[in-house]
Amino acid sequence: MPTIRIELFEGRTPAQKADFAAQITQACVRVLGGSADSVDVLFFDIARSDWSTGGVLWSERALPGAD
Amino acid sequence: MPTIRIELFEGRTPAQKADFAAQITQACVRVLGGSADSVDVLFFDIARSDWSTGGVLWSERALPGAD
Amino acid sequence: MPTIRIELFEGRTPAQKADFAAQITQACVRVLGGSADSVDVLFFDIARSDWSTGGVLWSERALPGAD
Amino acid sequence: MPTIRIELFEGRTPAQKADFAAQITQACVRVLGGSADSVDVLFFDIARSDWSTGGVLWSERALPGAD
Amino acid sequence: MPTIRIELFEGRTPAQKADFAAQITQACVRVLGGSADSVDVLFFDIARSDWSTGGVLWSERALPGAD
Amino acid sequence: MPTIRIELFEGRTPAQKADFAAQITQACVRVLGGSADSVDVLFFDIARSDWSTGGVLWSERALPGAD
Repeated sequence: MPTIRIELFEGRTPAQKADFAAQITQACVRVLGGSADSVDVLFFDIARSDWSTGGVLWSERALPGAD
Repeated sequence: MPTIRIELFEGRTPAQKADFAAQITQACVRVLGGSADSVDVLFFDIARSDWSTGGVLWSERALPGAD
Repeated sequence: MPTIRIELFEGRTPAQKADFAAQITQACVRVLGGSADSVDVLFFDIARSDWSTGGVLWSERALPGAD
Repeated sequence: MPTIRIELFEGRTPAQKADFAAQITQACVRVLGGSADSVDVLFFDIARSDWSTGGVLWSERALPGAD
Repeated sequence: MPTIRIELFEGRTPAQKADFAAQITQACVRVLGGSADSVDVLFFDIARSDWSTGGVLWSERALPGAD
Repeated sequence: MPTIRIELFEGRTPAQKADFAAQITQACVRVLGGSADSVDVLFFDIARSDWSTGGVLWSERALPGAD
């Protein structure tokens, strides 16, 4: 039944998300039990202009690659 | 005061969302009491490439209509 | 597949939640289509000391019954 | 460590978000302690057609400027 | 920077959560890149009386072990 | 209309939350406009045993004061 929400910077490929969702689901079944079918994973792409750390939006930082 | 968030596959029409929000709000007032004005409903459209069940993204499934 | 999260003041009875979840699920199927089994509803009880409107926690208001 | 999520009507400028994130972060450090670097703020733009209050979507109201 | 929220039935042990968080974090670094330190995982225990599927709270089902 | 959710380690006092909510609300009105009454702030206390950073729960770290 676990529902897993992932907020991450936009830009990851569908293949990366598919791979990550598969690995999380496998880890969930392995550690918590239950069936894989009961595990939902949702991705939320966040623009760097919508995420601030330390009071500064990531879109305003010099080092854009950090994540 | 209830705040209600709904995550659903993208593709529903504004009319469907308006109808669903109205019905939820009415049910909320009927069951929980309080005034309709205190009920907020927010919709979050999720792409099938951002939602995995059972470790597989819905965008990768053969039966795209399932929901 | 819709997932519905409801934040509300603590104090509602299990019967109220059961009734509300059933009505939301029925409305979801009626308006959006899909099967009832694909609809998840989660309740989050929020203490009045954890919810502020207009900059004032509800636990500090004179009229405690408002919702 | 606080993580702060803000849902607001779409249309605010990046400068407004940057300013708001900075002020929230400063208030967080001032009131709760901890370092600014541990404070994350995320913005979620919500279309008026995805937000209902009182059972009516904001996109369907006569007074579009309300917020 | 990914932030991961997990809603699951209450009752899992701290050891299970620690194990699951570690595995998710490792998968995140492996698949998405970035450093482990930038990955936050938060668990939300949900009572069976606060989670409905198909319009029925899990606390009201005959088979309490399902998850 | 902004709705603001704050996840933070449990242990803050009601006075701290009241102060923080008031300051956020004031900043919201100042920067984004709108009325204070339209600003909701919700706090979610997270146990250190439910929050992992870098793959390690905060309840398992030597320095318990960090936040």
